[in-house]
Amino acid sequence: MATNSINGEANDDHESVTIPLLTSERSNVNSTSQVAIVGANVCPIESLDYEIAENDLFKQDWRSGGKIQIFQYVFMKWLLCFLIGLIVSLIGFLNNLAVENIAGLKFVVTSNMMLAKRFGMAFLVFSVSNLTLTLFASIITAFIAPAAAGSGIPEVKAYLNGVDAPGIFSLRTLIVKIIGSISAVSSSLFVGKAGPMVHTGACVAALLGQGGSKRFRLTWRWLHFFRNDRDRRDLVTCGSAAGIAAGFRAPVGGVLFALEEMASWWRSVLLWRSFFTTAVVAIVLRALIDFCLSGKCGLFGKGGLIMFDVYSASVTYHLIDVPPALALGVIGGILGSLYNFLLDKVLRIYNLINEKGIAYKIFLACAISVSTSCLLFGLPWLASCQPCPSDASESCPTIGRSGNFKKFQCPPGHYNDLASLIFNTNDDAVRNLFSKNTNSEFQYSSILIFFVTCFFLSIFSCGIVAPAGLFVPVIVTGASYGRFVGMLVGSHSSLNHGLYAVLGAASFLGGSMRMTVSLCVIILELTNNLLLLPLIMLVLLISKTVADAFNGLSGH
Amino acid sequence: MATNSINGEANDDHESVTIPLLTSERSNVNSTSQVAIVGANVCPIESLDYEIAENDLFKQDWRSGGKIQIFQYVFMKWLLCFLIGLIVSLIGFLNNLAVENIAGLKFVVTSNMMLAKRFGMAFLVFSVSNLTLTLFASIITAFIAPAAAGSGIPEVKAYLNGVDAPGIFSLRTLIVKIIGSISAVSSSLFVGKAGPMVHTGACVAALLGQGGSKRFRLTWRWLHFFRNDRDRRDLVTCGSAAGIAAGFRAPVGGVLFALEEMASWWRSVLLWRSFFTTAVVAIVLRALIDFCLSGKCGLFGKGGLIMFDVYSASVTYHLIDVPPALALGVIGGILGSLYNFLLDKVLRIYNLINEKGIAYKIFLACAISVSTSCLLFGLPWLASCQPCPSDASESCPTIGRSGNFKKFQCPPGHYNDLASLIFNTNDDAVRNLFSKNTNSEFQYSSILIFFVTCFFLSIFSCGIVAPAGLFVPVIVTGASYGRFVGMLVGSHSSLNHGLYAVLGAASFLGGSMRMTVSLCVIILELTNNLLLLPLIMLVLLISKTVADAFNGLSGH
Repeated sequence: MATNSINGEANDDHESVTIPLLTSERSNVNSTSQVAIVGANVCPIESLDYEIAENDLFKQDWRSGGKIQIFQYVFMKWLLCFLIGLIVSLIGFLNNLAVENIAGLKFVVTSNMMLAKRFGMAFLVFSVSNLTLTLFASIITAFIAPAAAGSGIPEVKAYLNGVDAPGIFSLRTLIVKIIGSISAVSSSLFVGKAGPMVHTGACVAALLGQGGSKRFRLTWRWLHFFRNDRDRRDLVTCGSAAGIAAGFRAPVGGVLFALEEMASWWRSVLLWRSFFTTAVVAIVLRALIDFCLSGKCGLFGKGGLIMFDVYSASVTYHLIDVPPALALGVIGGILGSLYNFLLDKVLRIYNLINEKGIAYKIFLACAISVSTSCLLFGLPWLASCQPCPSDASESCPTIGRSGNFKKFQCPPGHYNDLASLIFNTNDDAVRNLFSKNTNSEFQYSSILIFFVTCFFLSIFSCGIVAPAGLFVPVIVTGASYGRFVGMLVGSHSSLNHGLYAVLGAASFLGGSMRMTVSLCVIILELTNNLLLLPLIMLVLLISKTVADAFNGLSGH
Repeated sequence: MATNSINGEANDDHESVTIPLLTSERSNVNSTSQVAIVGANVCPIESLDYEIAENDLFKQDWRSGGKIQIFQYVFMKWLLCFLIGLIVSLIGFLNNLAVENIAGLKFVVTSNMMLAKRFGMAFLVFSVSNLTLTLFASIITAFIAPAAAGSGIPEVKAYLNGVDAPGIFSLRTLIVKIIGSISAVSSSLFVGKAGPMVHTGACVAALLGQGGSKRFRLTWRWLHFFRNDRDRRDLVTCGSAAGIAAGFRAPVGGVLFALEEMASWWRSVLLWRSFFTTAVVAIVLRALIDFCLSGKCGLFGKGGLIMFDVYSASVTYHLIDVPPALALGVIGGILGSLYNFLLDKVLRIYNLINEKGIAYKIFLACAISVSTSCLLFGLPWLASCQPCPSDASESCPTIGRSGNFKKFQCPPGHYNDLASLIFNTNDDAVRNLFSKNTNSEFQYSSILIFFVTCFFLSIFSCGIVAPAGLFVPVIVTGASYGRFVGMLVGSHSSLNHGLYAVLGAASFLGGSMRMTVSLCVIILELTNNLLLLPLIMLVLLISKTVADAFNGLSGH
């Protein structure tokens, strides 16, 4: 990269230089580590040394160990990768299970009260449980492990590029990250769980690599091989790949994410090792989901290996569908760069508030939680009740958690389309937006209200002092305007509105995260629709190009 | 890599060191370039300089051009990527179209003669047409462009790693590669067309980058920017990605193949640019296939974007299916390393023959063609005729080209299962092996005969003087023993035999090619069955590990 400005690749290589600043989930806590990645003249917190000191003493020391030691080293390294995959997949599954059960219980209880017309009581239960969960998440984060706030991706990225922030890979950070992420996501905040999973994976890897927690004296002596920065970095790379693999159930996407977004440089052995790690994740997740199909996991129940399945045997699209896809790409690029711009501004304001002390941090989190509860409960009242379609493939209206047709306040035989999106977990909202054969389900006004709410709530929720990712909120937001465009195009297209929502999600991901290959594979593994690949690639290309052009102008 | 032997990663990093020697499609022609990759002390044919001379003269020269020149440079680079994608996808489509029509016509004519019991005449037509096609392919290769022989992947890899063999990217090589590959594949030889597509893509890229052919004075002056090795290498990388994308209709797999297998080092801009190129390929291919669905492409007709679709809505598999998958992985590893070992020996013998002169080369090709014709026509007579199943989902027996149930010599209402595999194009054989709901179609003996024939014929066919890839033969061979294992497991498994064939193909690819992530994505894009991903990853892991262990022992 040092030669960029010389041969005129300045503009051309621009994207790779600005990526660390503009893209990906970011937190407001360790902003120093973010700065440290970008400006080389800013003093880093702790520099890591990834070069091996190649001196005679070291060589002799190693040779004296002999073949057994080398074998032990290699075996241990693979064993550690296996353990990383195993533990991260268990954590990812636990996370999912806990969120679906806690949030599910909340929605079941609230919906039952709504059925009995006890609306005030329902709101009270809803908002108080949300507030409690948020408060819990922010208190443990603020008091026990401040490094666990945010998504953690910038910190891991900083580490992989040679800057070590204090405490990012400690045992307490790990525990707070897991529990905090579960309660933050369960509290209906507009935050994701994939980003925290990356940090969790990296944390697990780092702790395993150093042989346990130093602070709590839980260390093993036989792991002394891995006390060097280089081996630890390899393990952390595998851990972050495992995190994405567990968060999205996307093993190949995880490897590519670690490759494209996280690591500064890459060896083919590392590719192979991270592939091994995510393969373990995939196999363990598959077995656990198999176990849950027998109905022993409470409200988790129906989840398969594909999170948002939109498969259809024959997706037919023709030249006429290309203009809407191009439009989605442009919209995604513009909105994505605007999103990054606003996020940056909001995080700066939040940093000012957070600097004043822990009480301010926690108050901020509570304020966001209360406003979120009000919006989620209040906005559906704006939507008019729709009569249930006679040919609905599922029960209508649904009372309880999942389903496309939420009853909310509506009379029997009617459903509230906005409540189906907004008074729901984010995962279920995405599923509803991606659903096919529901072209007439949503009203224009409901989708628009939902889009605006998602866009701004996710910006304001991301900087609070709790583990919070950006992936899922970005997917929800993108899917909402994608579906809107699909409704506008209407019968002029051969794609159903659910597929437009998928393209919308792709465009917003491309515009805000600025990755290409890994996002493409992640979307593929999330939705299981390979026939849509040419369109998804097109949308990603356009949205990234447009967004790059905008942020070049806005002076980042 | 220089520090490998010091810190004990010697064994661990071993795989990445030996890969260039052991894996991937290789040719016997430019064996010098292969040697040049491996041993640094062997004198390379022509060294390339990928470093930019960073001197004041260069800087000043560049600065004087100003912004317009920089813009022109960047725009041109993207335009070239677009053109590479467009041209490579057109070539790939033309290739497919020509092969399916030529080979299809041959099988239709032969089958009609068989129907009229004129078996001798049918054999004559079959073998003479095969011989003519092979003769044509080998004559143009030997006389016009010897560099077009083999798959071309080693040459492209050598180029990307800094060694330029003479004439590998000339216009005549390109033309001979395209025409030769079509006739070699149409002539029923056990050779693939994906490897030649990689070389074709690289060739197109190199020719575009230098502004046309120097020899034929077809050059454009305004492309003087790209006269340096560095830019040309970038374009060649994109071209090889486009080649895989067009050959397998696997755009993401193409990018990853270029990344994992071809390029020695990688920048994120290059990832982004090759993604753009393969996206163009995917979109153009999609449009062309859309056009062909209307029936204007002769015998091409039914092809979709997915080459070997094995999708099924709910693939259920449990712990009981893991041992067969493990077994397949081990078999794939052993067979893969044996395959590489034998291939190496055969290529050495072929080199001795080929060194004697062009006449010997062509005679060798003809001998292989005649023996292939004899085997393909003769072996099905060993199989007994099977009565057509009453619940067959397609017509049985099929007379002509495609279909699971070939009539061959059988009486009406019966089919020859071995002929369905062996007296067919390789693509159709793979489709038959991957097919579901046909568990009782094949006999043990037929599958075994087919496997042995494929294994040895692909080894002996690969070194002849004609464009010849190894990917498809490896897939066919792997699929055959995979299906055999599936039949052995029988009703003890919840997977159908077609899915076992997919796993078998994955294991043999892993054992012989030794790639992981890119193979995984290519198999995914070929078969469109995401639910099988955990098992495919498991199989790939095992087979690569086992094969690496074997080839470490055999002293390559």
